[in-house]
Amino acid sequence: MLGPRLDVLYNKKRFLDVFPVVVEELLDTLRAESMPEDIVEWYRRSLEYNLPGGKLNRGISVVDTVEILRGKQLEGEEYRKAAILGWSVELLQACFLVADDIMDRSIMRRGHPCWYHVEGVNNIAINDACMLESGLYQLLKRHFRQESYYTDLLELFLDTTYKTQMGELIDLVSAPEDRVDLSKFSLERHRLTIVYKKAYYSSYLPVALGMHFHGISSPEQFTLAQKILIPFGEYMQVQDDYLDCSAPPEMLGKIGTDIVGNKNTWVVNVALQHVTPAQRKILDENYGRKDSECEQRVKEVFAAVGVEAKYRAFERAAYEKIVGLVETIPEQGSELKREVFMAFLSKIFG
Amino acid sequence: MLGPRLDVLYNKKRFLDVFPVVVEELLDTLRAESMPEDIVEWYRRSLEYNLPGGKLNRGISVVDTVEILRGKQLEGEEYRKAAILGWSVELLQACFLVADDIMDRSIMRRGHPCWYHVEGVNNIAINDACMLESGLYQLLKRHFRQESYYTDLLELFLDTTYKTQMGELIDLVSAPEDRVDLSKFSLERHRLTIVYKKAYYSSYLPVALGMHFHGISSPEQFTLAQKILIPFGEYMQVQDDYLDCSAPPEMLGKIGTDIVGNKNTWVVNVALQHVTPAQRKILDENYGRKDSECEQRVKEVFAAVGVEAKYRAFERAAYEKIVGLVETIPEQGSELKREVFMAFLSKIFG
Repeated sequence: MLGPRLDVLYNKKRFLDVFPVVVEELLDTLRAESMPEDIVEWYRRSLEYNLPGGKLNRGISVVDTVEILRGKQLEGEEYRKAAILGWSVELLQACFLVADDIMDRSIMRRGHPCWYHVEGVNNIAINDACMLESGLYQLLKRHFRQESYYTDLLELFLDTTYKTQMGELIDLVSAPEDRVDLSKFSLERHRLTIVYKKAYYSSYLPVALGMHFHGISSPEQFTLAQKILIPFGEYMQVQDDYLDCSAPPEMLGKIGTDIVGNKNTWVVNVALQHVTPAQRKILDENYGRKDSECEQRVKEVFAAVGVEAKYRAFERAAYEKIVGLVETIPEQGSELKREVFMAFLSKIFG
Repeated sequence: MLGPRLDVLYNKKRFLDVFPVVVEELLDTLRAESMPEDIVEWYRRSLEYNLPGGKLNRGISVVDTVEILRGKQLEGEEYRKAAILGWSVELLQACFLVADDIMDRSIMRRGHPCWYHVEGVNNIAINDACMLESGLYQLLKRHFRQESYYTDLLELFLDTTYKTQMGELIDLVSAPEDRVDLSKFSLERHRLTIVYKKAYYSSYLPVALGMHFHGISSPEQFTLAQKILIPFGEYMQVQDDYLDCSAPPEMLGKIGTDIVGNKNTWVVNVALQHVTPAQRKILDENYGRKDSECEQRVKEVFAAVGVEAKYRAFERAAYEKIVGLVETIPEQGSELKREVFMAFLSKIFG
């Protein structure tokens, strides 16, 4: 047995080992249409720049889910097929990130310039984002067309994409990157934003794909998984938001930018619910300003309204709700297994 | 019987009559997810701004195809269902146009500012384009999920979208809007561009959808339709390109902008194949310049190399090729009918 840390490294390594296969299969879809070599190479560059650099949690979760449901490690062709389903999630995520970075006018992503910021790319990145998404349907067609659940996979990806776009729209309309207007923020809008923009594709999609792969077909099981995973994804994003403005950079692994970036976060929404008029004025005047003194004043308001205690209470409630739902799964004889969700929980809470 | 011109008006009117149904069904998909009212209204504005203003040829062609194959007019619910399939093509086209306008930095479309140029929209248009596309899959799910050809419809739309993105990529890489480099142009690249960027979704997709709706399922019939419609779509685009730089504005209905806009057109590619070094120098120095004297010099080179005669020869060859393929369809006893294609041909050639 490898230790848990080595397990993670091993799972990432074997997942990454499938990436060159994914790239070649996708390039083959262009070659099959007699696309010129510079177009094939452009797509290769887009795939290699935008796909393998992240944590790959979502893609690896597809494989993890199948292995937990099977009760054993996947090998050979079966592993490869599950990993390709995982890479399909990563293609969808890459599409979202490339497009979001253009819309947010971000500069850097994962320590490199955003794709649209790379010399010679610019607005072609919009089309590239769409081609990353289209690629996943080519992978599904190639590997899953014969499966009874093929149409379910198509609908699951299409519906998840649509939900993510809804979340993106609330986010863009509520917090335009060039204007600060806290009156557009609210905790309920924020909840909708993170559930739609993040939770469906990050938490529910990978597990639902793993369930299909394993052969689960009853709609009730998918409904239950969704009921558990959406609050789970919501909690993960709230945790991200909280750590961004409270954790020291050495723990966070980066410098938090939500306050200066005018981000519509859980923290600012909780604060807005509890501020005095004087504190509200401080937030209005200092939130979203690219100035470290303004940022400090905002943090003082967050401390004064007791954001930390409210976060701890939210965390406890979320944990109890999720565990309560997980425990509705019978310990024996269920297709879906508690362990699928407990594996996630133990990674995140603690 | 209405005359042919009145027929066209009637077909457009009854098609437009279904549009409010499409809008409400799409807004219902957001309401079902408890999206806030301003988000629902944003989507309504995007749909109403970007969908009904064009010629709607592609969407109406879906209905036309079904009616020709059926040999009778569609009525009531059956008409509505075919029209909704037509509007799905219009949603896809709207997605392409909104995104293309951003990538090309266009200002006007159909006499109005491009969507991304509308006050308050900007880069949100990228997400809006994606939501127009996603909407079509919601319509398909609602109206076609029970049909045996549902998965075929999904694949047809997904594959067509991917092909269109390939065409867009060749176009963007070959003719960046900010740099003039005729050495990147070639007639073969131009052919690939228009076939992939335009012909698949404009010519083949509507007819193939109508064929599915009518119940045609044999892959050979779809292959034959594609063999006819791709050269047909190619010819239509070449005609567009030719008229843009040769037809008087009162006939064209707009002022041609391909030469000053540095567009990779059939005309400039034909000219490039036949120029003397001196004429090539004139093209290099004057093509894609926003200056009417430069434009005039380019037109003189086009005339000198005999573009008109080459266009007439291309037109004749295209017509003969297409008619030859149409005549491979048996006059009797075939599911596919010659008339589907002859109806197109008579609208275009003449």
